[in-house]
Amino acid sequence: MSGNTFGNLFAVTNFGESHGPAIGCVIDGCPPGMALSEADIQGDLDRRRPGTSRHVTQRNEPDAVQILSGVYEGKTTGTPIALLIQNTDQRSKDYGNIAQQFRPGHADFTYWKKYGIRDPRGGGRSSARLTAPMVAAGAVAKKWLHEKYGTVFRGCMTQIGEVVIPFEDWSHVPHNPFFAPVADVANLEAYMDALRKAGDSCGARIRVTASNVPVGLGEPLFDKLDAEIAFAMMGINAVKGVEIGAGFASVTQRGTTHGDSITPNGFETNNAGGVLGGISTGQDLEVSIAIKPTSSIVSPRQSIDVNNQPVEVVTKGRHDPCVGIRATPIAEAMLALVVIEHALRQRAQNGDTAPVEAAPLQASFL
Amino acid sequence: MSGNTFGNLFAVTNFGESHGPAIGCVIDGCPPGMALSEADIQGDLDRRRPGTSRHVTQRNEPDAVQILSGVYEGKTTGTPIALLIQNTDQRSKDYGNIAQQFRPGHADFTYWKKYGIRDPRGGGRSSARLTAPMVAAGAVAKKWLHEKYGTVFRGCMTQIGEVVIPFEDWSHVPHNPFFAPVADVANLEAYMDALRKAGDSCGARIRVTASNVPVGLGEPLFDKLDAEIAFAMMGINAVKGVEIGAGFASVTQRGTTHGDSITPNGFETNNAGGVLGGISTGQDLEVSIAIKPTSSIVSPRQSIDVNNQPVEVVTKGRHDPCVGIRATPIAEAMLALVVIEHALRQRAQNGDTAPVEAAPLQASFL
Amino acid sequence: MSGNTFGNLFAVTNFGESHGPAIGCVIDGCPPGMALSEADIQGDLDRRRPGTSRHVTQRNEPDAVQILSGVYEGKTTGTPIALLIQNTDQRSKDYGNIAQQFRPGHADFTYWKKYGIRDPRGGGRSSARLTAPMVAAGAVAKKWLHEKYGTVFRGCMTQIGEVVIPFEDWSHVPHNPFFAPVADVANLEAYMDALRKAGDSCGARIRVTASNVPVGLGEPLFDKLDAEIAFAMMGINAVKGVEIGAGFASVTQRGTTHGDSITPNGFETNNAGGVLGGISTGQDLEVSIAIKPTSSIVSPRQSIDVNNQPVEVVTKGRHDPCVGIRATPIAEAMLALVVIEHALRQRAQNGDTAPVEAAPLQASFL
Amino acid sequence: MSGNTFGNLFAVTNFGESHGPAIGCVIDGCPPGMALSEADIQGDLDRRRPGTSRHVTQRNEPDAVQILSGVYEGKTTGTPIALLIQNTDQRSKDYGNIAQQFRPGHADFTYWKKYGIRDPRGGGRSSARLTAPMVAAGAVAKKWLHEKYGTVFRGCMTQIGEVVIPFEDWSHVPHNPFFAPVADVANLEAYMDALRKAGDSCGARIRVTASNVPVGLGEPLFDKLDAEIAFAMMGINAVKGVEIGAGFASVTQRGTTHGDSITPNGFETNNAGGVLGGISTGQDLEVSIAIKPTSSIVSPRQSIDVNNQPVEVVTKGRHDPCVGIRATPIAEAMLALVVIEHALRQRAQNGDTAPVEAAPLQASFL
Repeated sequence: MSGNTFGNLFAVTNFGESHGPAIGCVIDGCPPGMALSEADIQGDLDRRRPGTSRHVTQRNEPDAVQILSGVYEGKTTGTPIALLIQNTDQRSKDYGNIAQQFRPGHADFTYWKKYGIRDPRGGGRSSARLTAPMVAAGAVAKKWLHEKYGTVFRGCMTQIGEVVIPFEDWSHVPHNPFFAPVADVANLEAYMDALRKAGDSCGARIRVTASNVPVGLGEPLFDKLDAEIAFAMMGINAVKGVEIGAGFASVTQRGTTHGDSITPNGFETNNAGGVLGGISTGQDLEVSIAIKPTSSIVSPRQSIDVNNQPVEVVTKGRHDPCVGIRATPIAEAMLALVVIEHALRQRAQNGDTAPVEAAPLQASFL
Repeated sequence: MSGNTFGNLFAVTNFGESHGPAIGCVIDGCPPGMALSEADIQGDLDRRRPGTSRHVTQRNEPDAVQILSGVYEGKTTGTPIALLIQNTDQRSKDYGNIAQQFRPGHADFTYWKKYGIRDPRGGGRSSARLTAPMVAAGAVAKKWLHEKYGTVFRGCMTQIGEVVIPFEDWSHVPHNPFFAPVADVANLEAYMDALRKAGDSCGARIRVTASNVPVGLGEPLFDKLDAEIAFAMMGINAVKGVEIGAGFASVTQRGTTHGDSITPNGFETNNAGGVLGGISTGQDLEVSIAIKPTSSIVSPRQSIDVNNQPVEVVTKGRHDPCVGIRATPIAEAMLALVVIEHALRQRAQNGDTAPVEAAPLQASFL
Repeated sequence: MSGNTFGNLFAVTNFGESHGPAIGCVIDGCPPGMALSEADIQGDLDRRRPGTSRHVTQRNEPDAVQILSGVYEGKTTGTPIALLIQNTDQRSKDYGNIAQQFRPGHADFTYWKKYGIRDPRGGGRSSARLTAPMVAAGAVAKKWLHEKYGTVFRGCMTQIGEVVIPFEDWSHVPHNPFFAPVADVANLEAYMDALRKAGDSCGARIRVTASNVPVGLGEPLFDKLDAEIAFAMMGINAVKGVEIGAGFASVTQRGTTHGDSITPNGFETNNAGGVLGGISTGQDLEVSIAIKPTSSIVSPRQSIDVNNQPVEVVTKGRHDPCVGIRATPIAEAMLALVVIEHALRQRAQNGDTAPVEAAPLQASFL
Repeated sequence: MSGNTFGNLFAVTNFGESHGPAIGCVIDGCPPGMALSEADIQGDLDRRRPGTSRHVTQRNEPDAVQILSGVYEGKTTGTPIALLIQNTDQRSKDYGNIAQQFRPGHADFTYWKKYGIRDPRGGGRSSARLTAPMVAAGAVAKKWLHEKYGTVFRGCMTQIGEVVIPFEDWSHVPHNPFFAPVADVANLEAYMDALRKAGDSCGARIRVTASNVPVGLGEPLFDKLDAEIAFAMMGINAVKGVEIGAGFASVTQRGTTHGDSITPNGFETNNAGGVLGGISTGQDLEVSIAIKPTSSIVSPRQSIDVNNQPVEVVTKGRHDPCVGIRATPIAEAMLALVVIEHALRQRAQNGDTAPVEAAPLQASFL
């Protein structure tokens, strides 16, 4: 029940602070015998890392991962896999002026109240930098799930600020800095340039999916698959809302339309988002999350300091004007951690001899 | 990590099926020395129980709770509190025709695929009836939190189908069958009567809050307070979406408006919903959930049976046309279980000597 | 991490007090599809229950178990199995005189100090009566393990007070009230009669084994199979020592003799007790435990009361003169709970397709 | 429930292999605000490290610990404390010849059977080297407990092979290589020299205690303090037996003598070893463990290889002739991890306002 470990059978313990010597994680429970090298992990880290376009923070971190344990002669041994990422670009001086102040919308205030002490360098433990080890652990989970079940995780941005982004094709996602599923992102570039010029930040909406998920994952009553997805997603920095399948649109649906009809060839729709009664149906998992605007902005804000005196806070330093931009690989990683946990749990309960159907019943979501 | 236990320090283990002899739960971790009787629990159970208006299922269950252990001479002893609720109105014959079929939108399909066996009587384990022990456990948590911190939990319906329900006052909630915070519910009555006549069901949106929550509850990195709230809410039957504070509205907000300004007298707004960086701010916790339309409807639906043959499913029996109506006390209970878990955890880490501030910084949500 | 739940994948939550209305447990994680009825459980409960000979407490409890949930049409469904045992013979008046006093060697003192309140009726929560639900849960675990792997659990008494009991044959165990593996127990009868007449109590040593245990169970580094066995055994009321294999005798052994030689046909000895590096070898698990003398005796003892005043304590009521006598089925049950937990965990990590060898390498222990 | 994490509220996750690049651990749950530096940890690591006398392995490891996170400006922040220990003396070539063979009494066999793969370099994950991070974590726990409650942990060797070591005084322990509580260790030196010359190894018996332990630590029914101590101790490499208080001697005791009499000034004896009903009494915790002879010896042993062919195994390399010699600081560390876990749990349940009595009732053990 430690607050820095995610999962039980595939347990990922995360450590580090934004500007300490290093960050990392320990993965406990990865099945033995899987080929694994740093290269298998680095790809997703590179998708998340800062400094890759003018629309994200200019902090320059290579985020090179090192495997410290758990792999022998290129294969996982079943023992803990420790992953280490050195912090190399630590301009702590940028943050000195906010050590005594609380940024509106930021964790400064609550860390101070909870612990009576906090590491202010770069947000310390509350920094989004700590999502890097999550992405690394997710890459390991993705690899195992893909080799075992053919499971594929994908994510994209579906809205940035007021700009709704239509879904054209997954193939566009890697070719623009927004993870947008569209060919032309000129409007998004212009939107972000204006926002940055205004010294402000904006929110975003991200969609993340998993295909080829085995039927039967998820534990009633409490550890439902969708409940754990909600837990994983809401735990990502800046997330304020989570939807599964039809989500909030289901409020205005009727039972005659929401319930996905089933035919011998599969489900006809996917309002369920791939989960019924907390258990996977074999359809695509469909998740959507809301990400709030970045709290660290150069526009002045009214706040207080540690002595409860009013102050005007201006956050300098290098921050993402929309933290949602880099959230896509993080959300994919967290979804993968949920799925592998339940895949292993399902094996515990039913073994591999129980029929594991790889998505026989499918329907497109949109 | 058992799927039927919620929480660790205040751990609630739920058991039973809709039409078995009894349902119940075991609460492990309730602090000793608190006065507790069945009457303290029965009130919330009565708010949730069926048969109280024509707008909910006509199944007649008194849901009378019995304390089997953990209380001696009217006080909790610190040992497990076992709560038992007998099932008295079990018309299993109503469900016989669906034992071999899968209702669209229902857990029939996934239970069958996961376990290879299921108890079809009244939905068995997947029945919303199993929320009764959650409500019972939540009542115990509420009582302790209220005595210790003055914490108050409240919930109301904010939308049913297409009908948005404005917030007038909390005082109206107990006086209508919808948990609506309005004086006049004639439009809701008419809406539900028409829906029932049409043999259909609809979704709903529920708001649940907690006031006088201590500052500092919640564990970074993963066991964030809002992440656990999302877990708890999405784990309630039929929930498809969860929002904290501004929720999905934060997508179109700017950093200059979303981040709640802080003054020496408190926060000026509550877009955060009472949580920053996963830790409580002392403001009201503000949660909103989307509940899908009931899957069990009398209108015919296309589906398959256990032999993958096409069938037309019609669900007779006694079902709620909007499961959202009775969801309010359930959501309150689950929120209480999250808060008590983190209140105890905070004591473990910081002890009672650490300053626990009861909501010094407050702002209205709406 | 609740203190009243044993195990994670096969999680048993125990509740109740000696003289409350009922005791019981909830088993969460039993694989679905196993035939199960009360009769499968009652046998082990009858082996443990009081009143069966003059050498144990004369309290008369039928310990009839009722399955409240988790079984449908005679098969486990994969959902929680709630087991209830009514308390029928509650002579609470016997205990009234000790409500304010602390029996030397008894949990009275520590419960009072920990909780500030305690249920004194029959020892309340600390009563050995709470081992009945453990035995019930263990019977379910035994059945699954036997059907899956052919695993067999056996136990016997090897010493009572100063009397060492030689091992003749397992077949004798059910035919005497001491679980002694000998044909003639006249000396044990005489020993116990004298002890009872003296108003005193004595300790005992119990041996418990498991045969046909799959190779590979147990998790390094901490959740070693032998570590969990030690946890399970030391958690049984009155146990003060635990040995695996050669146990304390290994202190005076040499490496050349302790390490069990391996041949293509199996191990030549079993000093390891079936565990190497925390993982099962496929040999018999061999465990030995020390049980202290019963604390509740009629001979007067020096103690204090809740006001720290000196008192002379005499415990009337109906107590076992040697709690070790009924400990054998309890120890078997706890060993079974450890083995099933690790068997399920091994499936999670390696699946059923990984070669599970049922004890290919065997050697007799003695 | 990951096998490489110890504890829940003070959770220590251990990683690494004997001859990988580094070993270490992550401590999650250390209360904030405690002064902590590497120097606070290095002392206990130096007590455990190899190469300090001719009676232990000659591997030369400085075991210098580095704090990677969780400490800011010399104080703990309440976030995870990652500790890293580089492996510097890795003569992997020493182990090449045993990669295909199973040493009798060693974990080679079971790791191979469980995982189908193992890191043979220096024993890989099963190496006693992995106790170094345990000792490091234990040092952090000891510091907090000492500052909070004045708790003191001590350990000593009480028997090596056939040589029983009388208890003279704790002050002797640091002044000889055996952790022996005696002034003159000439007989132990001679014993070990002869053993080493014979190419054999021997077992040992270690006593470990804690003084000034608060009353009331430990959770019935299963997470008893003594049960968790047994779990912690049996989880240490090579341990085959655990006793609390009188331990196996209680088998031959009477109730009239075993139960420690209580006076207004304290307990008169400590047969309980500081635990009654699974809860601490405030007396010293008294634990004794049996450690088996080292499995890696130069004398030839009969065994098999991975192809089930008979082989004669001779283990070269640098091994401890008695692993028990360096076990004392390890046992102390594990005891400290158990105590801090339960101290934090007790705070969760009762808060700091509940009276925490620091050992008001005391009695010497011997």
